[in-house]
Amino acid sequence: MTRIKVHTKAPTFFRDCRPFILAVFVAILLLYALWSFTETAWTNLSVSAIFSNATTDHCTSQPQSLNRTHDPPEPTFYDDPELCYTLDKPIDNWDDKRKSWLKLHPSFADNVQDRILLLTGSQPSPCKSPIGDHLLLRGFKNKADYCRIHGYDIFYSNACFDPKLCNVWAKVAVIRASMVAHPEAEWIWWMDSDAIITDMDFKIPLQRYKEHNLVVPGWPNLVYEKKSWVAVNTGSFLMRNCEWSLEFLDVWASMSPRSPDYKYWSETLMSTLSDKVIPGADEQSSLVYLLLREKKKWGDMIYLENQYYLHGYWVEIVGRLNNIIKKYLDTEAKVPVLRRRVAEVVSESLDGVWERYLRDAGGFGNSGWRRPFITHFTGCQPCTGKHDPAYKGNACWVAMEKSLNFADNQVLRRYGFMHPDLGNGSSVFPVPFDFPADEKEELV
Amino acid sequence: MTRIKVHTKAPTFFRDCRPFILAVFVAILLLYALWSFTETAWTNLSVSAIFSNATTDHCTSQPQSLNRTHDPPEPTFYDDPELCYTLDKPIDNWDDKRKSWLKLHPSFADNVQDRILLLTGSQPSPCKSPIGDHLLLRGFKNKADYCRIHGYDIFYSNACFDPKLCNVWAKVAVIRASMVAHPEAEWIWWMDSDAIITDMDFKIPLQRYKEHNLVVPGWPNLVYEKKSWVAVNTGSFLMRNCEWSLEFLDVWASMSPRSPDYKYWSETLMSTLSDKVIPGADEQSSLVYLLLREKKKWGDMIYLENQYYLHGYWVEIVGRLNNIIKKYLDTEAKVPVLRRRVAEVVSESLDGVWERYLRDAGGFGNSGWRRPFITHFTGCQPCTGKHDPAYKGNACWVAMEKSLNFADNQVLRRYGFMHPDLGNGSSVFPVPFDFPADEKEELV
Repeated sequence: MTRIKVHTKAPTFFRDCRPFILAVFVAILLLYALWSFTETAWTNLSVSAIFSNATTDHCTSQPQSLNRTHDPPEPTFYDDPELCYTLDKPIDNWDDKRKSWLKLHPSFADNVQDRILLLTGSQPSPCKSPIGDHLLLRGFKNKADYCRIHGYDIFYSNACFDPKLCNVWAKVAVIRASMVAHPEAEWIWWMDSDAIITDMDFKIPLQRYKEHNLVVPGWPNLVYEKKSWVAVNTGSFLMRNCEWSLEFLDVWASMSPRSPDYKYWSETLMSTLSDKVIPGADEQSSLVYLLLREKKKWGDMIYLENQYYLHGYWVEIVGRLNNIIKKYLDTEAKVPVLRRRVAEVVSESLDGVWERYLRDAGGFGNSGWRRPFITHFTGCQPCTGKHDPAYKGNACWVAMEKSLNFADNQVLRRYGFMHPDLGNGSSVFPVPFDFPADEKEELV
Repeated sequence: MTRIKVHTKAPTFFRDCRPFILAVFVAILLLYALWSFTETAWTNLSVSAIFSNATTDHCTSQPQSLNRTHDPPEPTFYDDPELCYTLDKPIDNWDDKRKSWLKLHPSFADNVQDRILLLTGSQPSPCKSPIGDHLLLRGFKNKADYCRIHGYDIFYSNACFDPKLCNVWAKVAVIRASMVAHPEAEWIWWMDSDAIITDMDFKIPLQRYKEHNLVVPGWPNLVYEKKSWVAVNTGSFLMRNCEWSLEFLDVWASMSPRSPDYKYWSETLMSTLSDKVIPGADEQSSLVYLLLREKKKWGDMIYLENQYYLHGYWVEIVGRLNNIIKKYLDTEAKVPVLRRRVAEVVSESLDGVWERYLRDAGGFGNSGWRRPFITHFTGCQPCTGKHDPAYKGNACWVAMEKSLNFADNQVLRRYGFMHPDLGNGSSVFPVPFDFPADEKEELV
């Protein structure tokens, strides 16, 4: 009976509950359909979300190339009749003006903090020394090579921007004009024509100068204790393109021949600095004076760099070049990746590897074998030819030729050639594949 | 009755067909759910599609900046021991090798078709002429200024890459080495040291040369009818960095002093060319010969450019410079936007505006007043000083000084200065705001 009961109950239940089951089934389908619809909507929404994030990230991580053809009509500081390129009028709020310009030219805002403009130059007329202009030509090529390798701009000035500053002070007027002409450049790097870059791979550690506006080779004890006019060297220095620098240039130039107080400054510098013998207020002595007397006002923003040869005295350096070549070739002979041939535009890719092996090079001082970044031929006067009598005979010209070829070998190598003899720039040899695995003695 | 029949039929029908209706309803829901599911899947699929297209387009429109620090370990042509920088061995499949390198260095692949490397140079030793090296220095500055303004790289060679090519042929060895050293450069632009860029704004119309590999100033009738050795000029020409060019360089160099057949070629050129008087196979006569005798093999890929001064003979040009200055200043006086001060890096932004006003300038020929792109001091020999006797006295040096200052004024102006007297590069004046609205007579 029970069995029958059960038997009879089942179909009854099935028959009675059919609408309920269908309802549940329908409900499930409705829920899934509804979910699918929301899912679709969500996915559609996420397309734009992912798109915008993706593209933003993508192009932030890969800064765009410079857009040289775009200059929007919006007014900039260039449209201000009061703003000039000369030292005659100060520029107010330069930082804001430069920032606004960069905002209107976004492709130049990318990586602006790493952008350097190298300035150098010489007198407008031919040199008196028969070898002078040839050395100027090679000195310019040396700097142009460095700038091409690292992607920096270079401007050679052979005009005198201020009739009263046609001497060691000329750089001040050129720097001032160039800051206005190059709002895209964060740093202006001045190099005298007799300074030569002798490490083509070295990159200026700009990160180190985040909190500074003027980076000049210098030694604090020589400034503040010895009060020496050679406590700094203005043959190679970096200046940030900012308001502070413009103000500093004005104050600096106020000690120059363009100032009515020039005579006063000449006397003051002679009496203040312990070892100044050449009369007249020169730009280097004036900088030492400002550090001494206006330290509070300027000192904190001036970085005295002596951890590498931002300026290196040639007499300390040239005698060590052969040993430096030998050490670098030894290292390359040991480390295949360092002698791998690469395109010149990616030479920087080896910097990291080199650093590992240069740890043993003993710093940048006299003792070490690291290439000096800059070799400065102070006192050689290649253009006039009237070198310091302390340098006997052809010492200056022989040393300059050697240093220029030392640097040129680092460049020529990327074109497949090298000078076998640093004393003679005329001859080159084709660099064999995998050099200097076997042939390193060729250059030593 | 009928009504009742109808009445009774209806519920019967409803009751009997309920499963069918439910089935249809369920089917519709299933279809919608299924469609939603497919739709979701399709949308998900399209995320990646849209993403990849979007980012590609996005970054094509804003090419990334050059990545100089990245050189992947994957082997390139640089790792092939057989590949050399000299003319001694041909390079097979250079186009593929260069393409593979660009693939490994994507930041250099962007806009590669517009990338130019300007090559120039002079002898390794000082010039014999007392003014020679000074003119070389200014000639290099002139080219470096142009390259900085337009974002091109420049390499100055004062080494002799092939001991047998230390003369007019030197350029062939330098071009060959530079193509290997610069796979990122689509075009190599050779300029002799005595050629000066006298229109700093003009951009080489690379689009015009899409189908060509060598662009040289030339006149078909002088080549094919007159068979003249001056039918082309090799003082300024463009060569595409490609397989065709490497093959052409090999054939070209096979007529040079490095070839055992040099004597044969010297005689052949003298007898073939109608007006060649200087003995010896020079690179210019050899190019004319290849056009004449191997037109089928090379001619189609060589563009003879005579629509602008890719090379301009100085004697035809220098006398017209004052009038050209006057016409440009007149135009600027009329059109405020042309005298607006701009940052040097965006000088190109005015090119389009200038073109509108230069339509009346009457082309690039003698008659017109458009700035000549390049003024070539053929026959002046600034380095030796031994100019063509046809040029009396100081004619060459006076003309070079004038042309250099003419060009320099276009550059200096972006730094706020100009030379008042083209005959004297030593003096400059600060350019007044809105110049030359009123002061245009100053320069005429």
